[in-house]
Amino acid sequence: MKSSFEIKSIGIIRTPYVSSAPYQPFRDQADEDFCIVLNPEFTEGLYRLESFRYIYVIYFLDKINREPSMIVSPPWSNGEKVGVFASRSPVRPNPIGLSVVEIKSIKDNVIYISSIDAFNGTPVIDIKPYIKDLDTREDANYGWVDELEDKEHLILHIKGIPHNF
Amino acid sequence: MKSSFEIKSIGIIRTPYVSSAPYQPFRDQADEDFCIVLNPEFTEGLYRLESFRYIYVIYFLDKINREPSMIVSPPWSNGEKVGVFASRSPVRPNPIGLSVVEIKSIKDNVIYISSIDAFNGTPVIDIKPYIKDLDTREDANYGWVDELEDKEHLILHIKGIPHNF
Repeated sequence: MKSSFEIKSIGIIRTPYVSSAPYQPFRDQADEDFCIVLNPEFTEGLYRLESFRYIYVIYFLDKINREPSMIVSPPWSNGEKVGVFASRSPVRPNPIGLSVVEIKSIKDNVIYISSIDAFNGTPVIDIKPYIKDLDTREDANYGWVDELEDKEHLILHIKGIPHNF
Repeated sequence: MKSSFEIKSIGIIRTPYVSSAPYQPFRDQADEDFCIVLNPEFTEGLYRLESFRYIYVIYFLDKINREPSMIVSPPWSNGEKVGVFASRSPVRPNPIGLSVVEIKSIKDNVIYISSIDAFNGTPVIDIKPYIKDLDTREDANYGWVDELEDKEHLILHIKGIPHNF
């Protein structure tokens, strides 16, 4: 069985983040700053995508140049140690990012979206509709974050909400 | 900028589906039939993953050998035509699958999960925690499926619930 595969860039993400990106998007960032510019040959593949409120964006974190560790410590977690697959760390065996974003509008090959925590120019590898029932889990939890003392504070970090404490 | 990237298999999905897989999992399938067998070198990366109720499994659909079309017609949709990115069709520019599954238990390098619509032996490329607030969108919709006359019936197909009508 093959142990590696080739994937291709189908477009890029435009964001205001040139040299640093938040762990997760700041939700008060101006929305017009974020869009996906699809390679023009894929434009027809967006037909009726606008009927969905949310989409998954799957992207390749091409700026990552560190070897992944199996145990990581998320920057906002006060030194908590967890497995890389129990984290959303970008430094992972395959540096693939996954975000749920809201569609603002679609014009030709450009999808205007709500904020996303990716560097400007990040290659996109797939776009999928986020479908209620298939993807919404109202009984999802926070995993190990639930066990931390300052959980409420950390959840603000996870959600990317700016705060002063 | 690079236009293609290499990703590697980090393990495989074990399912009962050898020659055909449902569009989405049948939820009454025996749960012990489904697991992810991670390559042993990544076992430590699962530390504390079990604290999450749900995970994302990202996998490479290595059995797909057709060229993708930009316009597709999902098998259960009565001929409805939509863009490939407005569908969850496995035949897409990058044949990447994404499923939300429940964790049943984790033993060493094996994650026992709820059902998943993938062929037995499908290579896994990433596992991420599904984190409430970050990934749950209670106001998500059904997109173009909402506009179809037999929406209630089609949603059973989307959810993979067996039915007789």
